[in-house]
Amino acid sequence: MSAQTIDDLPTPALILDRAILNRNLKRMSDRLRDAGVMLRPHLKTAKSIEIGRRAVEGHDGRITVSTLAEARYFAEGGFTDILYGVGVVPSKLPAIAELRRQGINLRMVTDNLAVAQAVAAAATGRFWPQSGQSAGGETFSVLIEIDSGGGRAGLPYPELPGLLDIARVLHKAPGVELAGVMTHAGHSYHHNTPDGIAAVAEQERQAIVGAAEKLRANGIPCPIVSAGSTPTAMHSRDFTGITEMRPGVYVFNDLDQAFIGSCSAGDLALSVLASVIGHYPHRNQVLVDAGALALSKDISAQEFKPQVGYGTIVDAPAQDMAVIACSQEHGFVGANEPIPFGNLPVGSRVRILPNHACITAAAYDRYYVVDSELDGGKSVVDVYDRINGW
Amino acid sequence: MSAQTIDDLPTPALILDRAILNRNLKRMSDRLRDAGVMLRPHLKTAKSIEIGRRAVEGHDGRITVSTLAEARYFAEGGFTDILYGVGVVPSKLPAIAELRRQGINLRMVTDNLAVAQAVAAAATGRFWPQSGQSAGGETFSVLIEIDSGGGRAGLPYPELPGLLDIARVLHKAPGVELAGVMTHAGHSYHHNTPDGIAAVAEQERQAIVGAAEKLRANGIPCPIVSAGSTPTAMHSRDFTGITEMRPGVYVFNDLDQAFIGSCSAGDLALSVLASVIGHYPHRNQVLVDAGALALSKDISAQEFKPQVGYGTIVDAPAQDMAVIACSQEHGFVGANEPIPFGNLPVGSRVRILPNHACITAAAYDRYYVVDSELDGGKSVVDVYDRINGW
Repeated sequence: MSAQTIDDLPTPALILDRAILNRNLKRMSDRLRDAGVMLRPHLKTAKSIEIGRRAVEGHDGRITVSTLAEARYFAEGGFTDILYGVGVVPSKLPAIAELRRQGINLRMVTDNLAVAQAVAAAATGRFWPQSGQSAGGETFSVLIEIDSGGGRAGLPYPELPGLLDIARVLHKAPGVELAGVMTHAGHSYHHNTPDGIAAVAEQERQAIVGAAEKLRANGIPCPIVSAGSTPTAMHSRDFTGITEMRPGVYVFNDLDQAFIGSCSAGDLALSVLASVIGHYPHRNQVLVDAGALALSKDISAQEFKPQVGYGTIVDAPAQDMAVIACSQEHGFVGANEPIPFGNLPVGSRVRILPNHACITAAAYDRYYVVDSELDGGKSVVDVYDRINGW
Repeated sequence: MSAQTIDDLPTPALILDRAILNRNLKRMSDRLRDAGVMLRPHLKTAKSIEIGRRAVEGHDGRITVSTLAEARYFAEGGFTDILYGVGVVPSKLPAIAELRRQGINLRMVTDNLAVAQAVAAAATGRFWPQSGQSAGGETFSVLIEIDSGGGRAGLPYPELPGLLDIARVLHKAPGVELAGVMTHAGHSYHHNTPDGIAAVAEQERQAIVGAAEKLRANGIPCPIVSAGSTPTAMHSRDFTGITEMRPGVYVFNDLDQAFIGSCSAGDLALSVLASVIGHYPHRNQVLVDAGALALSKDISAQEFKPQVGYGTIVDAPAQDMAVIACSQEHGFVGANEPIPFGNLPVGSRVRILPNHACITAAAYDRYYVVDSELDGGKSVVDVYDRINGW
């Protein structure tokens, strides 16, 4: 790494504060270990081996990923128990089998009977669906996805339509492990009180434990009972019956997580470094070189505070200073009082807190790591890589 | 390239229809050549050498870029007249000088007097601003940015505050070429009639020609008079005084461009290939493996048709079938009538038209190229790379 301080970095750049990262990692790790629940961090947020290694310290190393590119990257980084958390399709089975033959317990999820049948067929040595390629008795590990109220993927609870049919196909198939059930209470993101989130967490728990109990009551083992989002992991009051939690964004946190109460304002580890590129006093705005690509067009935090725009300015010299509009490489920075332009000359730098860290980070291939406890976050102390794409 | 047809591709994947691309390129190239205006395509959309080469056929090879990463990439690809179209800051001058020393006429833009002074200082051999690095008499080429009504960067017309001060600094500085003036009528994106866009185009023309005339009236040469967006390039009725146009998204077009009338529904060259990963008949939805990262969260086309969501399904089996919500890797596909789930089994593939091609494409490192005139777009006939990041 050639850059010595953040003033030497090209802009826009993605800045990670290691001191905050470490606090965020420890808080979640301690909380779940104290609760007797294993942490399977969702590394779709960080997409970084270095951060993944720190995240699983004190736990057994299991992780979650959202793409096969992440699965391959983390497998190369030494991770061996990996849950691919997006509903699988038959065309992805050859890639999964290839990693499994290398000793990686890459597990997958589905909520679909036809997919379960395709997995069973592939494992029993029949031809691969779609490709015609021969599959000589692969092994697979599958979790059945449950919808605990978020309305994304999964069999809706309490009806759990087709659960036993899917489970029996997987349980009976030679070479296939029905590893358990999983859910993600994404609707926790739309509550902003501890009580509101705790209620979603209890709903999540009842759904996933209820699904596990339905399997067991029918003689089908269900070792893994997997739940979790950052809000429910932070505010759940009862983990009874849950074996693992899969929070993701807690590693960095962001404006959205701060507003819903998953973290405090000082817990945001990720920011975008940008240069001021123009002054527009006639409309009380400056432009910065971080726009739609550098910040993303995710505006999830506006649900709770519209004036955050596409991201807020750190240590802003004017009230409610934020990126209020974006074009591809231009960010329009406004404020609710006159901007002191002399404090922000063209060429000066600002840091911008993102609405949604997972989406913003995906535009970058690396983190420039600083440490606010070392020197206020001035020096670049490390560079971590990321795996993007699919 | 190993894949033979799009059925063999991993999903999500970015699909480019070469037949439509070629029609789009020819339409714009012919239109501007007939008008006697040079085409300087904005390659921030395509970010591809192969597409850039095709785009400048019949013109003199000048291009526009939005990042220094693009500038380096296109310079390596043989392009020598490159306009970096985002307001420059002093910390970027060393990288620009490095390319210029290699024979690349990398031009920059500013609307700021302090930046103009920094450029002049760097060219006359004084120390680099900010870095302390010695600059032994560099040459630079600068265009002054004008705001023709879009309210993004540029000196607002007709006031043009400070124009002559900036121009004189640049014009007098040894080693600095004041190459001209440029503007981008981004507000053309919010009109959806030919007359409305033509009115914006005329406003854009009057502003940029007015700025050029003001310079010339004061004895300052202004060879380049640069304007252009895709809508104004397509609908302008008078290019008098403009020397070059910089449209970008026309190479692909997208839902937004179709709705505002820059192109027809059959002119959309870019789509995202996705797999159906789940069926949710209780809420009349399927999920696909293209979510916020694969599609982007850009919803610009919703200004004219809210039901397009995050992208519409090509050859959809139900009315108004679109990605109505996104999480990171999940796209929620809904419709305004019951979805025939049997026509979209889990594992089947759909193609999704994006709201804004520039932003969607930025998630991918390559285009899988098909040709609808060859075999309906079934075979993968080529792969083009892209340059992302900064």
